[in-house]
Amino acid sequence: MSNRTEISTLGEFGLINHLTKNFEISNASTIVGVGDDAAVIDHYGKQIVVTTDLLIEGVHFDLMYTPLKHLGYKSVVVNLSDVYAMNATPAQITVSIGVSNRFSLEALNEFYEGIYAACERYNVDLVGGDTSSSQKGFIISVTAIGEVAPDKFVKRSTANKGDLICVSGDLGAAFLGLTLLEREKSIYLENPQIQPDLENESYIVGRFLKPEARKDIIEYFAEQNIVPTAMMDISDGLSSEVLHISNQSNLGCRLHEDKLPIAEETRLAAFKFGLDPTVCALNGGEDYELVFTAKQDDYDKLVLNDNISIVGYMTELDEGRKLISKGGNAFDITAQGWNALK
Amino acid sequence: MSNRTEISTLGEFGLINHLTKNFEISNASTIVGVGDDAAVIDHYGKQIVVTTDLLIEGVHFDLMYTPLKHLGYKSVVVNLSDVYAMNATPAQITVSIGVSNRFSLEALNEFYEGIYAACERYNVDLVGGDTSSSQKGFIISVTAIGEVAPDKFVKRSTANKGDLICVSGDLGAAFLGLTLLEREKSIYLENPQIQPDLENESYIVGRFLKPEARKDIIEYFAEQNIVPTAMMDISDGLSSEVLHISNQSNLGCRLHEDKLPIAEETRLAAFKFGLDPTVCALNGGEDYELVFTAKQDDYDKLVLNDNISIVGYMTELDEGRKLISKGGNAFDITAQGWNALK
Repeated sequence: MSNRTEISTLGEFGLINHLTKNFEISNASTIVGVGDDAAVIDHYGKQIVVTTDLLIEGVHFDLMYTPLKHLGYKSVVVNLSDVYAMNATPAQITVSIGVSNRFSLEALNEFYEGIYAACERYNVDLVGGDTSSSQKGFIISVTAIGEVAPDKFVKRSTANKGDLICVSGDLGAAFLGLTLLEREKSIYLENPQIQPDLENESYIVGRFLKPEARKDIIEYFAEQNIVPTAMMDISDGLSSEVLHISNQSNLGCRLHEDKLPIAEETRLAAFKFGLDPTVCALNGGEDYELVFTAKQDDYDKLVLNDNISIVGYMTELDEGRKLISKGGNAFDITAQGWNALK
Repeated sequence: MSNRTEISTLGEFGLINHLTKNFEISNASTIVGVGDDAAVIDHYGKQIVVTTDLLIEGVHFDLMYTPLKHLGYKSVVVNLSDVYAMNATPAQITVSIGVSNRFSLEALNEFYEGIYAACERYNVDLVGGDTSSSQKGFIISVTAIGEVAPDKFVKRSTANKGDLICVSGDLGAAFLGLTLLEREKSIYLENPQIQPDLENESYIVGRFLKPEARKDIIEYFAEQNIVPTAMMDISDGLSSEVLHISNQSNLGCRLHEDKLPIAEETRLAAFKFGLDPTVCALNGGEDYELVFTAKQDDYDKLVLNDNISIVGYMTELDEGRKLISKGGNAFDITAQGWNALK
């Protein structure tokens, strides 16, 4: 082993692809393996989905401004979001933690209060886990298991040309919430006398610290008999996710800037920081909204739901992946999403 | 939050119990939750099991003497062992890793070679995971999913008075393998000129670095139509596990020292280190053998299998939990198993 290749040269998605590309599925029960929001497993003709996330202090969260209860809640929600992104309903989770001795039992109780609050809100059961010490930092691993009616799961790779591209809720707020918290942290570190100024910013801060998963959207699909043609949750940013769907579906796409759902609070916060709200919405990440493609026939049903915005449509591969600006210009969509390996 | 309780005051099992005791199961599909080797989930009348482990560098493994390929293999095997301990067959795993930039891609390739070797050996599919950076140390989280015929899963709490206590394979070798590796490490650290002396110790070192899960025993149960009354895998040591079964089944037990299966290599290594082989077998841990209880009616079938030893039997609660020594004396069994939180 004389060669040394730096992991950072591949990026997160490249690394996962590299490590798993030669793996062949051997169980008939494995329907969808690595490469989507969650795996799909067939058990005796019925299907379950499984997804997992590893959260590491200093990489994925900063305890300086993250209350432990919120952290517990969010650790669960980000996994449930992946289950919903398969058009499935989460039912069970496991939670493993590694804690250093700087944590007290009271601190862990707070963290678990958040876990339990999320379990209650989303009707999932905590069924297992593992608890151990860590030499440094807090480590959280959550696995979520969900159920999906046979063959109703929705992958990333199955969008069709002409399909509508839709997103739930609004975008960019979580990124601005994080930006604000990071700014207040550096002010505090320079001068601990100054109290954080989070006045009027509860929306964006809340979106970052305590996101919700879009249970309601999946329920709406079931009620309205809509099956999206492709779907993902938005953890890295809309641009990054739309590129995943386009790449895996072997298609192009058009997004319209004027259709992107951005909350008023998000626009104001972006202006305050001198940032373009559109860029925040496209590349912000951590919103945990859903992006999905749907048949044009579903248009009438989709527009009835105030929590769904139609933001574009899928095109032929050779038309590229474009953002049409408010001024009518076409720009290439590039993934500037968060990259945990940078 | 003015109180501070040190986590170490509870120990690992106490901590898990404390954090999960108030959690109520709300999904009908959750059959067995926290507190066994794995959870059991009913999906449309069919049952799956789920288990997860978090492994942290410096706490659970030492890269100074653990080849990465072996580490990958073992990370999978310890989870599969929990699935077998439910009398289930593993089918899928997810693997999440956190790596610092001291790891090269070549190092990760080696680790995944071990993952893949275990997947192939045990016929399981890698179906997902998460890859991120860590600020310090290597972090591994593996979740395994298995299948079990309806109501054939085996818990820890269902042993009956008079049941035979059985163990697979032999005990104590992994602990002595670790002891040897730790000794060679300290010699090396004091004098890097001295080469490690692992001559003739491949059995105990192999048992520690590359354990196997007892797939064969579960298959034997199925062939012979044996359903153990209670079962666990031996990760903390036989004493600790037998106490779990006794406590959860509300019974006492008798173990016979002369029946404990100990390999000749293990005995020799114990003597070399001035340790009692029986103590190593009882408290060593990391053997990943199975301990199970079975009806006396199954005696004839059990003795036919050379990989199964009958080491004792379950008694009434008020008869206590006793080890009967070779000299005929009765000693209380105490759990001195490994405690990851110490």
